[in-house]
Amino acid sequence: MKTLILGGDGYLGWPTCMYFANLGHEVYTVDNFCKRQIELEVGVTPLNKVFTLQERIDFWNKNSNNKIELFTGDILNHKFLYEILEKIKPENIIHYAEQPSAPYSMADRQKAYFTQSNNVLGNLNLLFAMKKYCKDAHLIKLGTMGEYGTPNIDIEEGWLDIEHKGRKEKILYPKKPNSFYHLSKVHDTNNIEFCCRNWGLKSTDLNQGVVYGFHTKETMLDEKLQTSFHYDEVFGTVINRFITQAVLGKNLTVYGKGGQQRGYLNIMDTLNCVRMASENPPDAGEFNIFNQFTETFTVSDIAFKIQKALDKINLKIKIDNLKNPRNELEEHYYNPSNDKFIKLGLKPHLFNDELIISFYKFVKNYENVINKNIIDPKISWSK
Amino acid sequence: MKTLILGGDGYLGWPTCMYFANLGHEVYTVDNFCKRQIELEVGVTPLNKVFTLQERIDFWNKNSNNKIELFTGDILNHKFLYEILEKIKPENIIHYAEQPSAPYSMADRQKAYFTQSNNVLGNLNLLFAMKKYCKDAHLIKLGTMGEYGTPNIDIEEGWLDIEHKGRKEKILYPKKPNSFYHLSKVHDTNNIEFCCRNWGLKSTDLNQGVVYGFHTKETMLDEKLQTSFHYDEVFGTVINRFITQAVLGKNLTVYGKGGQQRGYLNIMDTLNCVRMASENPPDAGEFNIFNQFTETFTVSDIAFKIQKALDKINLKIKIDNLKNPRNELEEHYYNPSNDKFIKLGLKPHLFNDELIISFYKFVKNYENVINKNIIDPKISWSK
Repeated sequence: MKTLILGGDGYLGWPTCMYFANLGHEVYTVDNFCKRQIELEVGVTPLNKVFTLQERIDFWNKNSNNKIELFTGDILNHKFLYEILEKIKPENIIHYAEQPSAPYSMADRQKAYFTQSNNVLGNLNLLFAMKKYCKDAHLIKLGTMGEYGTPNIDIEEGWLDIEHKGRKEKILYPKKPNSFYHLSKVHDTNNIEFCCRNWGLKSTDLNQGVVYGFHTKETMLDEKLQTSFHYDEVFGTVINRFITQAVLGKNLTVYGKGGQQRGYLNIMDTLNCVRMASENPPDAGEFNIFNQFTETFTVSDIAFKIQKALDKINLKIKIDNLKNPRNELEEHYYNPSNDKFIKLGLKPHLFNDELIISFYKFVKNYENVINKNIIDPKISWSK
Repeated sequence: MKTLILGGDGYLGWPTCMYFANLGHEVYTVDNFCKRQIELEVGVTPLNKVFTLQERIDFWNKNSNNKIELFTGDILNHKFLYEILEKIKPENIIHYAEQPSAPYSMADRQKAYFTQSNNVLGNLNLLFAMKKYCKDAHLIKLGTMGEYGTPNIDIEEGWLDIEHKGRKEKILYPKKPNSFYHLSKVHDTNNIEFCCRNWGLKSTDLNQGVVYGFHTKETMLDEKLQTSFHYDEVFGTVINRFITQAVLGKNLTVYGKGGQQRGYLNIMDTLNCVRMASENPPDAGEFNIFNQFTETFTVSDIAFKIQKALDKINLKIKIDNLKNPRNELEEHYYNPSNDKFIKLGLKPHLFNDELIISFYKFVKNYENVINKNIIDPKISWSK
């Protein structure tokens, strides 16, 4: 099967390329390296050395029977994208090629504007390219659980049956995103739903939780195949930040009351979920939505779990509460469903003591290169 | 009161400028004339000569005590927009400055891309400009009833209280737009709602029906103050098309079965509604939504009404059913609410025989300049 992975240089894109190559897919990937450009712009780097995508692909192709082919360019340039789809006619398109940081999108006008134009218009070009060159391909689009916000009702998987004044309707699950980044994903969802309904495209939207973890079967094969580990405020997520703070012997910084609950999953489960989605395409015209997470935690839960796990190796970690830079509910109802992937057979990796300790040991190797200045939040949701 | 009207050259923008000037507002307006550019691109013109905005403003300012001031430029250039808001610090911003045609947005990739980037990013710049220079101003944003689509439940005004598994939530009313243009308005709505919630901006979204009519109190003062009458497939709406066909002695062309029901209103009621919205600003942080229409009709209703009215002046009009170029339900439930404006005292102008006959007589004056080639649909929703 021909699989095109957009955003192959990214934290998830690169492991997905190798994983699908190992599954026997013909893998093609695209990147314009805009995330690396943003890293330079905001002055952050991953903890580890991330080899160039060309180096990683070269190394992979020399050591694997299932090659990966790279196209370098920007999907906002529709001619570039059209050429690729015309040439390859992919059956499977996995779309990660979006600006992925909520704090970045909230930093100022230029960054919000870039986020929405890059994400929404790139995705729009992709929809037109698919209609023109591979109408029957399956678009697997990465969305986020953050599209939903924190509603007072159970979060179903993408669609909701409602009754109003005695009449019934099936609606896209109502969204209440909390950043210009999350809004861009909602706009994408709405555009894709229309193209399925209007043109008969088929798509699966993966509303993904916060991904943690560094190692996959393929990244572990060689240091040159690693993906990125970010612990900074822009690209790092809460688990990475806490682990990094623990390595530095600093207190874990919980934003606000810490009652913010979210869905989480291990990077290995991301790969499993994307595979399962690709094995279960919807019919033409159908827009399928999965919630892609394995466990839900509050921010405080995570801090306590890390504290407890590291206590086993005799590390005494303290927890601080920081003024929350984000406008978000710090105590709220949260009950999202992930039934669809569980029914398809997903066996979650859990965020347990063993994982936390091994994660700690991994980051400990890099203790000397941690940049302490990029951990605390400087971007405010209100300013 | 200082009122900034974005899109002052448009069909509604220009009458709104004069109307608010006559109400005693200090009126400032902005346009980049992109709609006139699109007219050139697709090869259509309004039926009547529409004087340049500069000519119209000059004429108005010479004959009125309440002047209108023009800024020429593109709100996608945020520096241009920032300068205006910094200088004026408007209290009221009425935002019409968007690509307004659904068929245009469906014609091809470039036009869909332009529609979404122009509308969504221009509106995003405006939100950032307001936050920076006039956080307490009231943003009156023109949306469309088309954002809702044709759901099987009553269409409430922007928000919906739902119950799911015994728990309650208030959600933005679920949208099911039917073109990239309508999608752009949904994206705007989501961006504005977030900025009200996150930054404390105040905004009223006017989900407007299809506007018809040509004359307002101010446009009737002089030929030089007229607004545009479009009868073409791109900018013309169904009522204008039917009246133009009647003038030509052609059959009225109903798309498909003609059961497509929509909300409609007279241009004079648009002005009244926008005024009422401006007189009733929401609180800081609040996002108020009105459905702005006065009557609902199916496309067939409109054809029959025109047939019946023109029979009174002895014109025998026939009706044809054309293959529908749009993907839309041709028979459906439709029960939208417009209670809010009615409660505020709106007294609708109705689409009655008298209005139809006077509309016919107006278009009859232009019979010789009608371009018969631009009436029938060439843009398809599926191609």
